[in-house]
Amino acid sequence: MAVHPSVSVPGLIPAAAAGDPLARVDTPSLVLDLDAFEHNLRAMQAWADRHGVRLRPHAKAHKCPEIARRQLALGARGICCQKVSEAVPFVAAGIDDVHISNEIVGPAKLALLAQLARAARVSVCVDDAGNLADISAAMTQAGAQVEVLVEIDVGQGRCGVPDVAEAVALARRVQDLPGVSFGGLQAYHGSAQHVRSHAGRAEAASRAARLAAECARALRSAGIPCDRITGAGTGSAEFDAASGVYTELQAGSYAFMDGDYGANDWSGPLAFRHSLYLLATVMSRPVAGRAVVDAGLKSTTIESGLPRVAGRDGLRYIAANDEHGVLEVAADANVRLGDTLLLVPAHVDPTFNLHDTLVAYRDGVVEGIWDIAARGLSR
Amino acid sequence: MAVHPSVSVPGLIPAAAAGDPLARVDTPSLVLDLDAFEHNLRAMQAWADRHGVRLRPHAKAHKCPEIARRQLALGARGICCQKVSEAVPFVAAGIDDVHISNEIVGPAKLALLAQLARAARVSVCVDDAGNLADISAAMTQAGAQVEVLVEIDVGQGRCGVPDVAEAVALARRVQDLPGVSFGGLQAYHGSAQHVRSHAGRAEAASRAARLAAECARALRSAGIPCDRITGAGTGSAEFDAASGVYTELQAGSYAFMDGDYGANDWSGPLAFRHSLYLLATVMSRPVAGRAVVDAGLKSTTIESGLPRVAGRDGLRYIAANDEHGVLEVAADANVRLGDTLLLVPAHVDPTFNLHDTLVAYRDGVVEGIWDIAARGLSR
Repeated sequence: MAVHPSVSVPGLIPAAAAGDPLARVDTPSLVLDLDAFEHNLRAMQAWADRHGVRLRPHAKAHKCPEIARRQLALGARGICCQKVSEAVPFVAAGIDDVHISNEIVGPAKLALLAQLARAARVSVCVDDAGNLADISAAMTQAGAQVEVLVEIDVGQGRCGVPDVAEAVALARRVQDLPGVSFGGLQAYHGSAQHVRSHAGRAEAASRAARLAAECARALRSAGIPCDRITGAGTGSAEFDAASGVYTELQAGSYAFMDGDYGANDWSGPLAFRHSLYLLATVMSRPVAGRAVVDAGLKSTTIESGLPRVAGRDGLRYIAANDEHGVLEVAADANVRLGDTLLLVPAHVDPTFNLHDTLVAYRDGVVEGIWDIAARGLSR
Repeated sequence: MAVHPSVSVPGLIPAAAAGDPLARVDTPSLVLDLDAFEHNLRAMQAWADRHGVRLRPHAKAHKCPEIARRQLALGARGICCQKVSEAVPFVAAGIDDVHISNEIVGPAKLALLAQLARAARVSVCVDDAGNLADISAAMTQAGAQVEVLVEIDVGQGRCGVPDVAEAVALARRVQDLPGVSFGGLQAYHGSAQHVRSHAGRAEAASRAARLAAECARALRSAGIPCDRITGAGTGSAEFDAASGVYTELQAGSYAFMDGDYGANDWSGPLAFRHSLYLLATVMSRPVAGRAVVDAGLKSTTIESGLPRVAGRDGLRYIAANDEHGVLEVAADANVRLGDTLLLVPAHVDPTFNLHDTLVAYRDGVVEGIWDIAARGLSR
């Protein structure tokens, strides 16, 4: 077979345009129900305001500057990012207050962190004295200044210093170094977020808050002011906001919800609506009990479960291949080749990370196509 | 918080440059060991040549035109794609023979298929008479011609007509319609690929080949020539090539291998080497028994298992979060903050789909950065 310079190669056109009916959007496409989305943004902002805490929504959930802009317009105080490269398109979009809620290790990343810290107000986490020294050196070299939060492990067993004494020692080192200033505590309890029962989440959040409070007291006793304690996800924000300990909420998924968060018990005052769907098309209908859609592992991740078919009875997504989703079809379910279906992804963050654009719609009509500008930015 | 047009925003620089040592590549990055990769390409091409079948490697595995070019240079006869949009960057790169090994449904996709069919030799699968009529209409309208292969379900239970009679009826319809020509049979048995035992895979492949052969005989009896029977993945290619039934192999993962294929029993004459790794950095070392790397669900998918740490004893990847991988560290394992580790992804196809570039290296030195141009093209 010959490989030759192509003569006339077609380009790809966008999946949709403003004004299109949702059913005409090309698939698979990630689509956002704006009414449900805006309800969620308002509900979380109101909850934060009511408890006098700042809302700093996590952009790792969506990676989309248009979404961050809407959160800020409603009162959010900056955003969180999980990676230093992820912050770049948000700062480029004019967002000037970014907390990197993670440790940043390695010379290329610290050089980028320093550049970002010259363009915006930036904070970052540490749990290691050597890494802290590297951050200080990178900032000093670039003539930059970054706020450093000491991360303390409040129950997740991932990053963070394991106890209060180490946290105090590390905060003291921050005070001794140039280019860095002590900004407070990162105290996020990831594994509390999906404790299913409302009471169980309350208990896990309460243990985390007690440890964070103990650490803040020890810092103040050592003469180190600790005015910022940041943490909270969608599952624990209700409790963290009301804890009297946390000053800042980092939740992200609340704007969208997903299958995993939907399975939590939401019997408290905060409840969010599903706003994010994966639009898929039935592309094979080979036998009575089976349909196949054009959305599989490359359109939604399944580590938290398979997607669910929304608003249609008798259809169950039972297997995901790379580019196929196999549906079990009940005898009385009426589904035809070419039908479009709305799927609820099980885990919103890695699913956003598979898509370049988000189709925003209201009442079944497309309002805009938003760029998921930080998609793939994991460095 | 003010949102304002940014003044000086840093850009992202590539993860590596030719000549860099592998350990200096920024992470997380997908990296390719060229010696192992080229061994795999040669081994599969030699196996196909020895049995007189065509090798048409599946580009859904890697989505990278540079890789397809190397496969073609060694003797491959065109490529497969799984989606019509996925084919666009390959045709744009000058690859003029593409089989879409899948059903393509919906007007936007069929319009694109017709454009592609005017720029290259293109074939596509059908399992439905209505879809076939739509393809014919789209081709006729665009003045294009596409080869159509009838897909028959040879054991996977996904797409494809369920029996020989339907296959013959559909092939007959192809012959009656303008803009389409009957190209043969698609007979891929996806679920045979990961049957662990060598004998079990041989048996599953043999059943699929018998059904494909029966279908080809029925077509010929009906006066419909069937010169192309395409299928085979990495796990069954050994048997499919030697079956005397298949004329074309669609394997893709063989070039890279992954944790799931690595777990198969490879006691036959074909064995492939791991060539693809995810390079990650230890970014937290909070307690003795735990390290955390900067590569999680947004850098590798885990539906086929967690990644494995290659070439280092005493390190086990035990949990993946969005951007973190938690490692269990044995008492005698020496791992430090900033160390880079090579991880073996469990499932190569969706992992490639998370990355924009591939860092190709030999003997620990970077040779090039290749564009994963079809990343995210799932329409």
